Amino acid sequence: MTSSFSTNMRIKFPVLAIILEVAIIILFGIFVKYDSEDNKYLKLYPLFQDTHVMIFVGFGFLMTFLKKYGYSSVGLNMLIAALGLQWGTLLQGFWHMKSNEISINVTRMITADFSTAAVLISFGAVLGKTSPVQMLIMAILEITIFACNEHLVEILEAKDIGASMTIHAFGAYFGLAVARVLYRPSLKNGHVNDSSVYQSDIFAMIGTLFLWLFWPSFNSAIAEEGEAQKRAIINTYFSLAACTLTAFATSSLVEERGKLDMVHIQNATLAGGVAVGSCADLNILPFAAMLIGSIAGIISVVGFKYLTPFLASKLNIQDTCGVHNLHGLPGVLGGIASIIAAAAQVDTKISTAMQAAALACSIGIALVGGALTGLILKLPFLGQPPDQTCYDDSVYWEVPNEEVPQIDNPPSSDDD
Amino acid sequence: MTSSFSTNMRIKFPVLAIILEVAIIILFGIFVKYDSEDNKYLKLYPLFQDTHVMIFVGFGFLMTFLKKYGYSSVGLNMLIAALGLQWGTLLQGFWHMKSNEISINVTRMITADFSTAAVLISFGAVLGKTSPVQMLIMAILEITIFACNEHLVEILEAKDIGASMTIHAFGAYFGLAVARVLYRPSLKNGHVNDSSVYQSDIFAMIGTLFLWLFWPSFNSAIAEEGEAQKRAIINTYFSLAACTLTAFATSSLVEERGKLDMVHIQNATLAGGVAVGSCADLNILPFAAMLIGSIAGIISVVGFKYLTPFLASKLNIQDTCGVHNLHGLPGVLGGIASIIAAAAQVDTKISTAMQAAALACSIGIALVGGALTGLILKLPFLGQPPDQTCYDDSVYWEVPNEEVPQIDNPPSSDDD
Amino acid sequence: MTSSFSTNMRIKFPVLAIILEVAIIILFGIFVKYDSEDNKYLKLYPLFQDTHVMIFVGFGFLMTFLKKYGYSSVGLNMLIAALGLQWGTLLQGFWHMKSNEISINVTRMITADFSTAAVLISFGAVLGKTSPVQMLIMAILEITIFACNEHLVEILEAKDIGASMTIHAFGAYFGLAVARVLYRPSLKNGHVNDSSVYQSDIFAMIGTLFLWLFWPSFNSAIAEEGEAQKRAIINTYFSLAACTLTAFATSSLVEERGKLDMVHIQNATLAGGVAVGSCADLNILPFAAMLIGSIAGIISVVGFKYLTPFLASKLNIQDTCGVHNLHGLPGVLGGIASIIAAAAQVDTKISTAMQAAALACSIGIALVGGALTGLILKLPFLGQPPDQTCYDDSVYWEVPNEEVPQIDNPPSSDDD
Repeated sequence: MTSSFSTNMRIKFPVLAIILEVAIIILFGIFVKYDSEDNKYLKLYPLFQDTHVMIFVGFGFLMTFLKKYGYSSVGLNMLIAALGLQWGTLLQGFWHMKSNEISINVTRMITADFSTAAVLISFGAVLGKTSPVQMLIMAILEITIFACNEHLVEILEAKDIGASMTIHAFGAYFGLAVARVLYRPSLKNGHVNDSSVYQSDIFAMIGTLFLWLFWPSFNSAIAEEGEAQKRAIINTYFSLAACTLTAFATSSLVEERGKLDMVHIQNATLAGGVAVGSCADLNILPFAAMLIGSIAGIISVVGFKYLTPFLASKLNIQDTCGVHNLHGLPGVLGGIASIIAAAAQVDTKISTAMQAAALACSIGIALVGGALTGLILKLPFLGQPPDQTCYDDSVYWEVPNEEVPQIDNPPSSDDD
Repeated sequence: MTSSFSTNMRIKFPVLAIILEVAIIILFGIFVKYDSEDNKYLKLYPLFQDTHVMIFVGFGFLMTFLKKYGYSSVGLNMLIAALGLQWGTLLQGFWHMKSNEISINVTRMITADFSTAAVLISFGAVLGKTSPVQMLIMAILEITIFACNEHLVEILEAKDIGASMTIHAFGAYFGLAVARVLYRPSLKNGHVNDSSVYQSDIFAMIGTLFLWLFWPSFNSAIAEEGEAQKRAIINTYFSLAACTLTAFATSSLVEERGKLDMVHIQNATLAGGVAVGSCADLNILPFAAMLIGSIAGIISVVGFKYLTPFLASKLNIQDTCGVHNLHGLPGVLGGIASIIAAAAQVDTKISTAMQAAALACSIGIALVGGALTGLILKLPFLGQPPDQTCYDDSVYWEVPNEEVPQIDNPPSSDDD
Repeated sequence: MTSSFSTNMRIKFPVLAIILEVAIIILFGIFVKYDSEDNKYLKLYPLFQDTHVMIFVGFGFLMTFLKKYGYSSVGLNMLIAALGLQWGTLLQGFWHMKSNEISINVTRMITADFSTAAVLISFGAVLGKTSPVQMLIMAILEITIFACNEHLVEILEAKDIGASMTIHAFGAYFGLAVARVLYRPSLKNGHVNDSSVYQSDIFAMIGTLFLWLFWPSFNSAIAEEGEAQKRAIINTYFSLAACTLTAFATSSLVEERGKLDMVHIQNATLAGGVAVGSCADLNILPFAAMLIGSIAGIISVVGFKYLTPFLASKLNIQDTCGVHNLHGLPGVLGGIASIIAAAAQVDTKISTAMQAAALACSIGIALVGGALTGLILKLPFLGQPPDQTCYDDSVYWEVPNEEVPQIDNPPSSDDD
C-alpha cells in the first residue's frame, strides 16, 4: 500500500550520500591531520564516549516513542550523526586552522559530536514528516550555520560551556523554523501514527536515561580541567536530580486525575541538563544549579501541556518531539541564568551584555537559518512523504510483514 | 476502568515532591559547597558513571520484566534515585561535616548513588504494590536509617568495600520487612499481572547486563587506589563470570525438563557481584572470588525456586522481584565470606568480630527500620493501590489506548 | 508442543557447565595471581569497560533480531562470554607465563574479553541451530585454537591491533566451517522463525549502536600509549562514520524500490570498525581510514544481498547472522589494507609478507579448526534441536504463555 508512493529513494538518496562522502574524504585528504600535541587524550576519552553515547543512543532512542517510526528514529539519527560529525569536523576545523591544517584530537571529536546534536534536535521537530534526502541536506546546511554562530559566540567571549544557547536553543529554534516552513495543514488535527504504544515508550526511556546519566559529561567535556570542570560535573548532576522531582510533580499536577505522562518523564526530566549548561562551570554553588533545574522541569512540562498545542494550532508549528520544551525553553532559561550569574558577578570573566548577545544571536541566526533551510527542503524533488504516510517507517524502510506488532484494531475472535 | 480508583495523586504526590525538593534546596544552600581539594576527580569519574548507569539503567530496567509495570519500574526507579541521591548527599554529608560544611566531590557523588541502591533494592520487594507517594516517603526514611547504619559500620571499622552487608543485605531485609507489614492476603495465590511477557523479559536483560558489566566499578569505586582497587576490579570480574556459569547450570537443574528460566538468568547471574562485595579489595586471589561467585549463583537460583514461594506462603512476605535471592542471601554470603577471610588473616586490618557485628547490625537495623517504615506506609491516605490494580501502570500513569500490546485474554468485542 | 522434544538438558548441560567451572577454578587456584606491577590500570579501565559492553550488550543484542530467539541470543551470548573470558584468561595466560604464574591485570582482562569475541562471531553463524551444550564445547575448543593462532601471529610480528584478522576473520571463517559441517538440508528454503519482527529489530539496534560507539575503544585498548593509541581512536571513529554513509547508500541502492533494509543498517554500518582494525594504530591519516570504512560498508551490504544467498544455496553454508559480511569480508579487507599499508611503508616495523602470512594463517587455521569442531559438535548426544524447532527459544527456555507477542498471521482480513 504505502509502497505505491514512489519516493525515488533509489536514485537520489544513495547518490547524494555517496557524493557527500566522497567530497568529505577529499577534504579530509587535503586538510585533516592527527594532532600530535594532544597529551591528555586518555583523560578526556571517557567524557567523549559518554557524549558519543548521548548522541547515538540518547537522541536515537529518545525518538523511538512513535509506534511506527522506530527504524527511522534510531536509524536516521545514526545516519545524520555520522554525516554530521564528519562535516562538523571540517566546518569547526576551518575556524581553527593552523598552517592550513585541521588537527584532530579527542577535543575535536567531542566538538564534532556536539555539532551533530544541534541537527538532531532540529530533526526532532520535523520527525516523521521528512525524507532521508531532506535530512542529509539539513545536516549539511545546519552544521554550516551552526559552526558560524558558534564562532561568533566565541568572538563575543560569552560563556556557554554546556551550550544551552549555541546547541540547545539554536537547534530547537532552527528546527521550529524548518517545521513552520514545512507546515502541513492536513496534520492540524493529528495523525493516526503520531502516538506511542506501550513498548515504544519503554524504548524511549533508554534514550532518556543515557542522556540524563551522561549529561554531566556533556556539560563538562570541554571545560577547563580543574575546578571549572569539577563544578560542571557537580552542578549538572544536581540540576538534573532536582529537575526530575519537579518534572514528575508538574506532570501529575497538570493532568486532571493526577496521572503521570510518559512524554513529560521522557523529556522534561532532561531540561535541567539543558538549562544549567551555560552556567555549569561557574561558581554558582550546587543549590543554585538545583534551582535552575527545578524551574526547568516545571517550564518544560508546562510547555508540553499548553505551549506545544498552542504553537501547532495558532502558529502552525508542528513540533513532533516537542523540542521547544526540552531544548528551546530550557536553553533560553540557561541563557538567562548565565545573564543573572554575570550580573551577580560569580565570575570576573563573564559579561552580562555578551551573554545576552550570545543568546540573541543564537536564536536569531537559528530562526533565519532554519527558515531558509526549510525553503530549500521544500523543493519538490526531495522525496518528502505525503501526509497520509507521515510517521511511518514503511515509506523508506523494508518492514516485516506484521509491520507494527501492536494491535490498533482489536483482532477478531479466531485470533490466538 | 482502572481510573475509577481515585488515588488523589494530583494533590498529594506533587505537593510532597515539591516540598521535599524545596527543603533539600534550602539545606543544600546552607550546607553544601564544592570540594576544592579533590584532585583526582577525573580518575574516579568513569567509575562514578558506571555506578550511575547501574542505578538508573541497571536497577530500572531489571524491574521492567513485569508485563504491565514497565513505566513504573523504570520511571519510579528514576524518581526514587533522583530524590535519594540528593537526600543521601545530605545525610551522608552530615556524618562527615567539616566546619559545618558538606563538601561535594566525585567520591561523594558515588556514595550518594550508593545510598539510593539500598532503596531501589527495597523498592524491588514491594514493586507493583505501592504508590509513588509511599515510595517518596520510603526513600527519605530508608536513606536516613541507611546512613546511620553505614556510619555505625564505619565506626566498627568493618570491611565492606562493595557493600554486601550495608547496601545489599540491608536493602533486601529492609524491603522484606516493609513487604511483610504491607502483606496483601488476596495476592496469596498470585495476580494476573504479576508475570512477564516475551518482550518485557528482554527489556529486563538490559538492566541485568549493565549491572553485570559495571559491577567491578561498583565494588572498586571507593576502594583505595592501587593494589586494593585493582583487586576489587579483578575479583568482581571473575566472581561474576563464575557465578554466571553456576546460575545457568542450577537454573536448568531445578526445572523438571531442564529448561532455563529467565528470572534466574536476569537475577542470579548478578549474585556473584553482591557476594564478593565485602572481600572484593582483599588479597583473596581470583580463584577464591570465583568460588564465592559460584556458590552465590547456586544459592540465588535455589532461593528463587524454593525459598521465595516459602516466604510468600508461610511467612506472608511477598517479594515481587525476589530481592532476597539477589541481594539478601548473597549479601549474607558476602558477610560470611568476609568473616572467613578475616579468620584466614588475608588482611591484618580485618577482624572476625567486627565483620560479624557489621553483618548483624546491618540486618537487624534493616529489619526494625523496615518494619517501622512499613507501618508508616500503611497509613490509609498514601494512595496505596487496591489489590486488583496491583502491578498495573494505568493506576498512576497515562497509558496508550492499547495499554499493553500483548494479548493475555483473547480480546472480545468489548475490548478497547 | 516443542517440549515434546527431549533435549536432555537437565543432565548434560548443568553437569558440563559445572565440571567446566570446577576445572577452571582449580586451574586458577594453581596458576592465576594478581599482577602487582600494573600501575596504569585506571587509565585502561574505561577502555576495558567499553570493550566489555561491546561483548555482552553489543554482541548479545545485535543477535536479538530473530523474533523468537531473543532469550537465547542475549542469554547464551552471556553464558558463552562468561565461560570464554575465564578460559581465555587461562589459554592466553599459558603463552605468557612467568615462573609458572599467570598475572592478571586490566590488559589481560581486555584480551580475555577479546578471545570471547571470536566465539561470539562464530555463534552468530550457527545461531538458532545449536544447543547450549554444543556452544559450551565450541567455546572451549575455539578459544583454545584462537589462542594458538593469536600466538602464531605474535611470533610473525604482524600488526593487527584491532584484530581484523585474528578475531574477525578468524571468528567468521571458524563459524562458517562449523555451519557447513552442521548443514541442515531442510532449512534450504528458509524457516518460518528465521526472521525479525518490528520490535526485535529495534532491540538489535541497541547492540549495533553500542558496538559502533565503543569500537574506537576496541581497536585502541591494547595499542601503545601515545600517538599509536590516539591514532587508533581517531581512525576508527572516522572509518565508522564513513562506513555508515556508504552502508546506508548501498542498502538503498540494491533494493528495487530504494528502501533501506534493517539487516544492512544493523550490521554493515559496523564493517568500518572491523576493516580498519589491522591498520588502526598506523599513521595512515584519517582520510585513508575513511576510505577503508567506505569500502567496507559497500562490501558488507553487497555481501548480505548477494553472497549470503549464494553461500546458502551453492555451498550449503547457512550463516544465520551473516557474520561473513560483517566480520569475514571486512576482516579480509582489513588484512589487505594492512598489506597495502606495509607496501606503502607507513611504518617501518610492518612487513608485507608477515601481514599476508598472518591473514592466511588466521583464515586457514579457522577453517580447519572450525571443520574439526563442527564434526565434534555433530555427535548425536549433544542436544542439537530438530529442524522444526530451530530459532525457537522454547526448546531450551521457559517462555511465557503468549510466547512471542507478535502476530505472524494477520488476524483478520480487515487488519493492516
